[in-house]
Amino acid sequence: MLELRLVQGSLLKKVLESIKDLVNDANFDCSATGFSLQAMDSSHVALVALLLRSEGFEHYRCDRNLSMGINLGNMAKMLKCAGNDDIITIKADDGSDTVTFMFESPTQDKISDFEMKLMDIDSEHLGIPEAEYHAIVRMPSSEFARICKDLSSIGDTVLISVTKEGVKFSTRGDIGTANVVCRQNTTVDKPEDATIIEMNEPVSLTFALRYLNSFTKATPLSNMVTISLSSELPVVVEYKIAEMGYIRFYLAPKIEEDDEDTKP
Amino acid sequence: MLELRLVQGSLLKKVLESIKDLVNDANFDCSATGFSLQAMDSSHVALVALLLRSEGFEHYRCDRNLSMGINLGNMAKMLKCAGNDDIITIKADDGSDTVTFMFESPTQDKISDFEMKLMDIDSEHLGIPEAEYHAIVRMPSSEFARICKDLSSIGDTVLISVTKEGVKFSTRGDIGTANVVCRQNTTVDKPEDATIIEMNEPVSLTFALRYLNSFTKATPLSNMVTISLSSELPVVVEYKIAEMGYIRFYLAPKIEEDDEDTKP
Amino acid sequence: MLELRLVQGSLLKKVLESIKDLVNDANFDCSATGFSLQAMDSSHVALVALLLRSEGFEHYRCDRNLSMGINLGNMAKMLKCAGNDDIITIKADDGSDTVTFMFESPTQDKISDFEMKLMDIDSEHLGIPEAEYHAIVRMPSSEFARICKDLSSIGDTVLISVTKEGVKFSTRGDIGTANVVCRQNTTVDKPEDATIIEMNEPVSLTFALRYLNSFTKATPLSNMVTISLSSELPVVVEYKIAEMGYIRFYLAPKIEEDDEDTKP
Repeated sequence: MLELRLVQGSLLKKVLESIKDLVNDANFDCSATGFSLQAMDSSHVALVALLLRSEGFEHYRCDRNLSMGINLGNMAKMLKCAGNDDIITIKADDGSDTVTFMFESPTQDKISDFEMKLMDIDSEHLGIPEAEYHAIVRMPSSEFARICKDLSSIGDTVLISVTKEGVKFSTRGDIGTANVVCRQNTTVDKPEDATIIEMNEPVSLTFALRYLNSFTKATPLSNMVTISLSSELPVVVEYKIAEMGYIRFYLAPKIEEDDEDTKP
Repeated sequence: MLELRLVQGSLLKKVLESIKDLVNDANFDCSATGFSLQAMDSSHVALVALLLRSEGFEHYRCDRNLSMGINLGNMAKMLKCAGNDDIITIKADDGSDTVTFMFESPTQDKISDFEMKLMDIDSEHLGIPEAEYHAIVRMPSSEFARICKDLSSIGDTVLISVTKEGVKFSTRGDIGTANVVCRQNTTVDKPEDATIIEMNEPVSLTFALRYLNSFTKATPLSNMVTISLSSELPVVVEYKIAEMGYIRFYLAPKIEEDDEDTKP
Repeated sequence: MLELRLVQGSLLKKVLESIKDLVNDANFDCSATGFSLQAMDSSHVALVALLLRSEGFEHYRCDRNLSMGINLGNMAKMLKCAGNDDIITIKADDGSDTVTFMFESPTQDKISDFEMKLMDIDSEHLGIPEAEYHAIVRMPSSEFARICKDLSSIGDTVLISVTKEGVKFSTRGDIGTANVVCRQNTTVDKPEDATIIEMNEPVSLTFALRYLNSFTKATPLSNMVTISLSSELPVVVEYKIAEMGYIRFYLAPKIEEDDEDTKP
């Protein structure tokens, strides 16, 4: 039997909103450790990895490992019916082909339960090795979202270049070119306004803005975003989820056949 | 001659917004008692009854009973041009085929008058007998609107079941089932947050969510909604309008041919 | 070389938003006096004149007169990427066929530069003589915008009539007629709430609401709008831009062939 009670139910609502457009169907994996998901986006270019650790739940009961195949669009529809202050409980009986989402209003005056059918989804779990990155940029998530959105009004791809001084986002399109430089800045009033750069060696990589923009749907989950870059590896765009986990997006850099095309 | 001066003009704006999508053309009836309307929706399934008592107007002059055939969409367009703090006066001369809406800004610096042609509309006034209801649910109007909207993302019809403990709204659709239970709750800080159930006998009735959702356009008119249910009668969804009247929506329950289809 | 540094960068963003739908391509003219633009709208009916005086810039360097042909939609796209508190610098090298917009965040942590290609645009600069007007109406810009929007839900043209007492806006359409009268009012708490009428002789002129509505996109630039009317001349709708200039829209009155058609 599975019964996971999450007091801050809005977190789960935000998680679904941030991945439902990227991934159609996916398996949620429940184990003693936590509630997790790993899935490729529908065009098989980007990878999403979600972890909500069991300690983050008020009550976490998972008698045996369980993999629940779920249509994320439908699950998002149901979670939209939860109030932002509602407590959400996820329930599934052993061997059942359904999952139930229960929403309790803070005053307990309104209790809703939504039941949905599970699906069989083929998926292979990819092992993602912990890697060393050339550069790790930590910056306000709203700033990163703004930059990705702004640049996509000019071009389709972004060249991200990290030096000790800062990180530069560049694009080029029919109407012109654009460069946005964010300087390292640790002396801020609020820690979440800081831009912090850890760099082992300079790195310059090009990515499709369409995917980065999609990743930024996770912005409501966290004030900060961490972007980890290495020339040989997919970029990792990570949003921490409160004290309990993270959502990570992986995207391979574009190989530039025509240098002129994307490098401003 | 007709001259009705309504200081809280925004009420009339909200009334029109709440019925213009349900009813195309209708007669407004003016008598010494008040300003009223009774009309079937365009698919002849639901009935709207509006009453604004004469006492609610700052000035109310109606020399003889008058029935004014009006296209509600056009009237709504004109009322949209009134400011939310404007005083609205409705004027019609005897025998005239037009009606004039006058809007005065609170400072009297801006005075507008909008004149529209009246129409001849055939309509028979239905006598709606006062009835005894099996159950009357009074609840926050925003909560009722939220539930109808949420459930219509899952299914097309809602089963409303009232017991002494509370009222349950249930639906079922392709993606699953949903139940929302609101418990009786009278010990609230603000009276408009209460959910109050008066029940003579339990009742369970099914309605098309499309119509209920349409009724909830009246939500801005009142913090509370009253839902009166009887197995033999149309449901009445009532929104009180300040101290001066009400808007009531009537809808016949669906006869369930296939039990499995709508009963979760 | 051209280098214009505008601390209140949001002004330039608002200027572009207010003209980009009216004019596709236009020459910005830079001289020692200021940064200006004059252009006909794409249907060659209305004229826009913009002036930002050099004194309004924190730094203003313009070595020689320069005319820069620009697609306003593309420029607006780039300026949308500037934050509302950003400092904007416009830069162009002598003989260069590009212009660069630089945006600096208030904390200097984020610096963006956007470069766009210039175009060759044929245009003749019209001399607009200073004229005597029969009537000049100064009123809150939001009120003027509201009236133009409201009336265009009823009719296509507006008859503006000025008397000593006030200004009347009238229209007529399929669903009826509308008149909005704004009274002269100088005894207001805030000067920007005043409606002030300077009149030499009464004037009544008809204009296409489509254009007036387009002009009101400049509303965010100023709390006040000035409407200057003469029977022989195009109306001038002027929005002052802070201490540094103005944006003026010119529109010829409609000659009324059929009196009944537009005169309510």
